[in-house]
Amino acid sequence: MKFGGTSVADLDRIRNVAARVKRETDAGHEVAVVVSAMAGVTNQLVGWCQSLSPLHDAREYDAVVATGEQVTAGLTAIALQEIGVDARSWQGWQVPFATDGAHGKARIAAIEGAELIRRMQMGQVPVVTGFQGIGPDNRVTTLGRGGSDTSAVALAAALRADRCDIFTDVDGIYTTDPRIVAKARKLDKIAYEEMLELASVGAKVLQTRSVEFAMKARVRVQVLSSFEDLPGSLLVDEDEIVEKEMVSGIAYSRDEAKLTVRRVPDRPGIAAAIFGPLAAAGVNVDMIVQNISADGMTDMTFTLGRTDLPRARRVLDDNRGTIGFSELVADADVAKISVVGVGMRSHAGVANTMFRTLAEKGINIQVISTSEIKVSVLIGAEYTELAVRALHTAYGLDAA
Amino acid sequence: MKFGGTSVADLDRIRNVAARVKRETDAGHEVAVVVSAMAGVTNQLVGWCQSLSPLHDAREYDAVVATGEQVTAGLTAIALQEIGVDARSWQGWQVPFATDGAHGKARIAAIEGAELIRRMQMGQVPVVTGFQGIGPDNRVTTLGRGGSDTSAVALAAALRADRCDIFTDVDGIYTTDPRIVAKARKLDKIAYEEMLELASVGAKVLQTRSVEFAMKARVRVQVLSSFEDLPGSLLVDEDEIVEKEMVSGIAYSRDEAKLTVRRVPDRPGIAAAIFGPLAAAGVNVDMIVQNISADGMTDMTFTLGRTDLPRARRVLDDNRGTIGFSELVADADVAKISVVGVGMRSHAGVANTMFRTLAEKGINIQVISTSEIKVSVLIGAEYTELAVRALHTAYGLDAA
Repeated sequence: MKFGGTSVADLDRIRNVAARVKRETDAGHEVAVVVSAMAGVTNQLVGWCQSLSPLHDAREYDAVVATGEQVTAGLTAIALQEIGVDARSWQGWQVPFATDGAHGKARIAAIEGAELIRRMQMGQVPVVTGFQGIGPDNRVTTLGRGGSDTSAVALAAALRADRCDIFTDVDGIYTTDPRIVAKARKLDKIAYEEMLELASVGAKVLQTRSVEFAMKARVRVQVLSSFEDLPGSLLVDEDEIVEKEMVSGIAYSRDEAKLTVRRVPDRPGIAAAIFGPLAAAGVNVDMIVQNISADGMTDMTFTLGRTDLPRARRVLDDNRGTIGFSELVADADVAKISVVGVGMRSHAGVANTMFRTLAEKGINIQVISTSEIKVSVLIGAEYTELAVRALHTAYGLDAA
Repeated sequence: MKFGGTSVADLDRIRNVAARVKRETDAGHEVAVVVSAMAGVTNQLVGWCQSLSPLHDAREYDAVVATGEQVTAGLTAIALQEIGVDARSWQGWQVPFATDGAHGKARIAAIEGAELIRRMQMGQVPVVTGFQGIGPDNRVTTLGRGGSDTSAVALAAALRADRCDIFTDVDGIYTTDPRIVAKARKLDKIAYEEMLELASVGAKVLQTRSVEFAMKARVRVQVLSSFEDLPGSLLVDEDEIVEKEMVSGIAYSRDEAKLTVRRVPDRPGIAAAIFGPLAAAGVNVDMIVQNISADGMTDMTFTLGRTDLPRARRVLDDNRGTIGFSELVADADVAKISVVGVGMRSHAGVANTMFRTLAEKGINIQVISTSEIKVSVLIGAEYTELAVRALHTAYGLDAA
């Protein structure tokens, strides 16, 4: 059972978490708990590090920021003991969660679960700090923002848990953002690969890395509300989903920008000349389109994270000599809309439905990209809600 | 260099601490730093534990409360790096500070200083969390309130430091409380034993245990202000003080209470019958006076911490049958005044000066106790300031 920052935001909510855990132990289940820092605490600690030094030592950052979960784990153990549940807190370095040495964004290498399993069999509930471990340098590491989901999934794998319940402030995975589409439906089940596409295109329920981990280790993950007592959405293997929907969800992202490199020579190696320096500068490029060539010259358009736009412009300007373009045209006023579904593989016409639906609403498609289980388009940002609602209806996702 | 909670209360003060440390390293000194939690943080964490469970697990309390210093240590290391000082934070379990298993009030058993010494020789400043260590159970322990002073002194001993500087919100040890006596003087040097008496009778500058540790390990401790750049007071061996004052300081405590057990049988074993049960209940008794016996009955008067008064009354009432007293008379409206000085040993008349001075001011002495280097009296609480000022003058301690 993993509880996020809003679920442990104050003492009353921690008591609520304890009561929730007790219901499971009372029902005869063996439970391990993973907790995040109290909402707001991590941001405060990060802010302090940044104020003292914009380029602070990531090892010190980790030592400071990891204390947030350590406080919550201890308090949650106390709250459990208070209502008669045998519990003890475990800090990442105590379990240990062995990670690599990439401070600030470490990856879990191995979790030693034997002692926890032994204690759980004796009826004790381990309360484990999310988001952290210990590096080869014997210092505290953190996994990067949202890393507590990954901690929980990795611990569930190490404990060979039947299920990993992620308690959060939403009650499950929806066909799309319920704030935009009132008729969005909660999904009982969703395949790992679908969730991966949805997570990475803007549905911020689960951290992408935790979904990858769950898929690899085949951990059954349930996303559910920590404030209501309702079943949530279950992440499972595609094979477990009997009736596959052609499209199971529609995601959108407003964090995109489009950059066009005008009039570059249409010669072998030109893509490498553009995207090589961008990759070297750490700019992640997403969709790419190359226009039909005319008079030996072409336009190259691609999308990237909006915050990367200034850096990308600088990199390309610095390499203007080797690339040889006439101008850079940027547009940050765009949104990416994606339809996702494992059923897509066996159904023709998913992309076609998308294009026709958008055309009927008069929405111009600027860039298209497709994968096995996803079709994404870039459109003007002001059409975001209109497009998502129209597609939700077109694919038959609206609730009755 | 040890910095208390007010010295690291916010980011500006932490920057100030870093600048102070840099001055020492610039001067060619090897420095290790010990830090407390930011002022107020420990109280908040303790409050949370108590709210969740009045009888909380001390091991969980330690895990929660120890995070305060961990934050400060990381932030201080970042602040040092930012101004070009090579630094790294060390948590108690990393050094390690091995302690016994008495969670919440652990004692330091051993400090492994070799790696710190090696790094200091290479120019690195270790920033170590005060107040904590690791117990035999591989869990975080804390040393009890004020334990950071003890951490600093113990680390200084382990590193064979030339000096242990304790930076605090006062600028040294005074002949008495300057808030009461305007003419109080800062002492350049004070003997460990004197400081021990002063610390335990109410001058709250250094934690008693840290002074004991310094005396045992012969660590030269300097108490000085973290806000002004002035020399402080140096705790040293008595032999280092050339010109011994007869009286070097006057302390007072208002946390006392007096309890009289009226009309007990004056027989062997009566003291044990009274003080045995009190000790068993954890009540610390300080001064004891027994009246002259009359008709085979006597009164037994003693002082104790004011907060222990209700417990002491209950214990004695419970044992009324074996003790056989007529009534208990309590007085919480008292204060203890002590004059302290290693020079006292070789000077007769110190006590006499005290009694005469108080008599001249019309102050009645209720109880007297003496040790080799201390004379204490119990008086009515309303005379506290008057007594302290009169004695300060009488012993020639007033500043010119």
